[in-house]
Amino acid sequence: MENYNYAKIDKHQMARLNKQTVMRCIADNGPINRAAIARHVGLSIPSVMQITDELLEHRMIVSRMTTEAKPGKKAELLSVSGEHHRFVGVDIGRTTIRIAVVGLDRRPIYTLKFPTSAVEQPSVFVDRVCKGIHRALDESKIDLDTVVGVCVAMPGLIEEGTGRVLFSPNFGWKNVPLQRWMNERLPYQAIVENANRAQGMWEVCTHPEDMQKNVVCMGLGYGIGGAFLQRGKLFYGASGTSGELGHITVSHQHVPCTCGNYGCLEAMASGAALARQAKAAVDEGRDTLIRELAGERDSIEAKTVFDAAKAGDALALELLDTAAEYIGTALGTVINILDPDVIYLCGGMMRNGDRFLRQIQDATMRRQMTEAGRRVVIRVGSLQEWNVALGATQVVPYYEWKSERMSFLR
Amino acid sequence: MENYNYAKIDKHQMARLNKQTVMRCIADNGPINRAAIARHVGLSIPSVMQITDELLEHRMIVSRMTTEAKPGKKAELLSVSGEHHRFVGVDIGRTTIRIAVVGLDRRPIYTLKFPTSAVEQPSVFVDRVCKGIHRALDESKIDLDTVVGVCVAMPGLIEEGTGRVLFSPNFGWKNVPLQRWMNERLPYQAIVENANRAQGMWEVCTHPEDMQKNVVCMGLGYGIGGAFLQRGKLFYGASGTSGELGHITVSHQHVPCTCGNYGCLEAMASGAALARQAKAAVDEGRDTLIRELAGERDSIEAKTVFDAAKAGDALALELLDTAAEYIGTALGTVINILDPDVIYLCGGMMRNGDRFLRQIQDATMRRQMTEAGRRVVIRVGSLQEWNVALGATQVVPYYEWKSERMSFLR
Repeated sequence: MENYNYAKIDKHQMARLNKQTVMRCIADNGPINRAAIARHVGLSIPSVMQITDELLEHRMIVSRMTTEAKPGKKAELLSVSGEHHRFVGVDIGRTTIRIAVVGLDRRPIYTLKFPTSAVEQPSVFVDRVCKGIHRALDESKIDLDTVVGVCVAMPGLIEEGTGRVLFSPNFGWKNVPLQRWMNERLPYQAIVENANRAQGMWEVCTHPEDMQKNVVCMGLGYGIGGAFLQRGKLFYGASGTSGELGHITVSHQHVPCTCGNYGCLEAMASGAALARQAKAAVDEGRDTLIRELAGERDSIEAKTVFDAAKAGDALALELLDTAAEYIGTALGTVINILDPDVIYLCGGMMRNGDRFLRQIQDATMRRQMTEAGRRVVIRVGSLQEWNVALGATQVVPYYEWKSERMSFLR
Repeated sequence: MENYNYAKIDKHQMARLNKQTVMRCIADNGPINRAAIARHVGLSIPSVMQITDELLEHRMIVSRMTTEAKPGKKAELLSVSGEHHRFVGVDIGRTTIRIAVVGLDRRPIYTLKFPTSAVEQPSVFVDRVCKGIHRALDESKIDLDTVVGVCVAMPGLIEEGTGRVLFSPNFGWKNVPLQRWMNERLPYQAIVENANRAQGMWEVCTHPEDMQKNVVCMGLGYGIGGAFLQRGKLFYGASGTSGELGHITVSHQHVPCTCGNYGCLEAMASGAALARQAKAAVDEGRDTLIRELAGERDSIEAKTVFDAAKAGDALALELLDTAAEYIGTALGTVINILDPDVIYLCGGMMRNGDRFLRQIQDATMRRQMTEAGRRVVIRVGSLQEWNVALGATQVVPYYEWKSERMSFLR
């Protein structure tokens, strides 16, 4: 019975949850007046006034007078303040590192990117990333006292709580205490989070209608990953390693995966897998446009396969058909297990037009159980370059809420 | 923004949640005194007194004086009352229907079972089940006014809210409004729930240490199903069809499944699949004890395969190896997606000794991603005959809480 908590709810927690709800309501609907907030949230106007006064005092929100109200009845409109609390998001991609600085209003204040280059020496690499963060904050000219924290998003298994990179197949890292190293080097609190979770946070932040839903986000790029969000909250699991959709077994063929296993979705249908399959077909002398489009054999990548498919290349179409079938098999499994409301497909592979989406949707329909997941919608997520970095910025306030650390909003 | 609720929490909800927590604390730890409840739950003694007075008044709990206390300091000990609120659970199995009547203390008052027989005509079948419920309640001699409700647990996809059987491959049912029919025939409220969810409820009720955890329950019997519970609450998904672990694709072999798809775990590794595979091997003339143990070819079932394996039969061992490998593949996928704390393996297939469990654990370790699911424990769930019926009894108060209908505890 050691770890079994019978958790009571007290007034402090109730107040905190209601403050959070009011804040989110203003973030999503502002500029908004207090009466409208009360209607949205179901609190009395005096309760809303008490909360908004506190939020104004802590400079979480700002007010301005509307000019549209009837004469003699000017109303005060509230919006989230972008000025006083800043968050830094870092997207450690395979080829590029992107850094975004935003305010509480989620609007980018400054962005910076530079090549990822060598990552073999994690500690040297961390120095470079921290230098980049310092540079971004410096060039952004913001008051450094307004920086609440930094979130570094990267592919791989991250341990919950410690931010230790347990395993990042793309980077060849095992057991790297990245969060500790970041915190030792930065004067702001640093969090390390999985890149697909950061992307998922961004999807939910930019689709407020999903805030009450079960959302799965699948990242289809060089590798394949995922995240699961319930009512706007990241789902971690027992050790923080949930959402590894790229390592669902989809084939008993002995195709080795970077994770050490075989037949994983990532080994069969990722961008890396497509490029590898195309190269092998070219090496076999298959009749295809792929080599010509790539210039030389070693320049073949997933994009080349999509381009060749657009030109009607039979081999490219066949490779994409097979990849879509495997992705659909994995998504059918996700639906049979989780029955989510929405599945967002994100990442570079989805930037190649609607055909691939439709193929995945068709394959999923065939592979999910009859009558299961009757409300699931599969759609393409946001494909903007800065999504993961922006999502990472949102992980900082999310952790603050979760840990009750965000002292200015207790 | 239509369906986007910014839900406030109010004092009513806070009081209700705390009442529920106190009730659960008494159920798990009773007989217990008020001071110990206050320590467990973190509420003040006056708050606990207010709640327990209300629970006593509504006859949810009973009190008795301890005889062990120091002289002059007799303490009042509280326990859940089994007398005043009764719940009926019905387990509609493939061969047997089991009915259990319990009190709030979860102790069986009466049990009754009879053969399932033909289910082809759902409406005739429902009449028979309702007659069974009437008989059980009649023979139990309990005051019928104490019956809060009935839960019918059966395999298949059940629509959340309506209790409509969307699809039950084992029974050949599609779109049967079972919950409505039950409610039309019974004077008590009736709920229809998936049998694996009922089993999962029972696991969590009988393992209070799992109440704060993510629990997956996999039912391995004639068919294969599952349930996912988060912090003691059933996870439904968007339409109520989550947890269909038997229909995870584990093979691209064209082995047809009862669900209309192919290569599902249920088609490759269920009790029905094992029996089918053994029969096919016997038909091929393979050297095996299976036929002899079964008496005749058509009497071969999964149990025969397990018995033959215990006698060292090479074919039986091979069939079980393959089944364990497929089950481990599916569980590896479950772990990669959900990273649960505990996986309970339940159902008839698990009643054949530890060897099969160890094989499944080994296969899962091989198939889950390296470093993923580091805290997952896979163990055999409770294998008692009455589990599903008892779990179903617990679904009734669970629905009552969820819907805030349990008026005597508002």
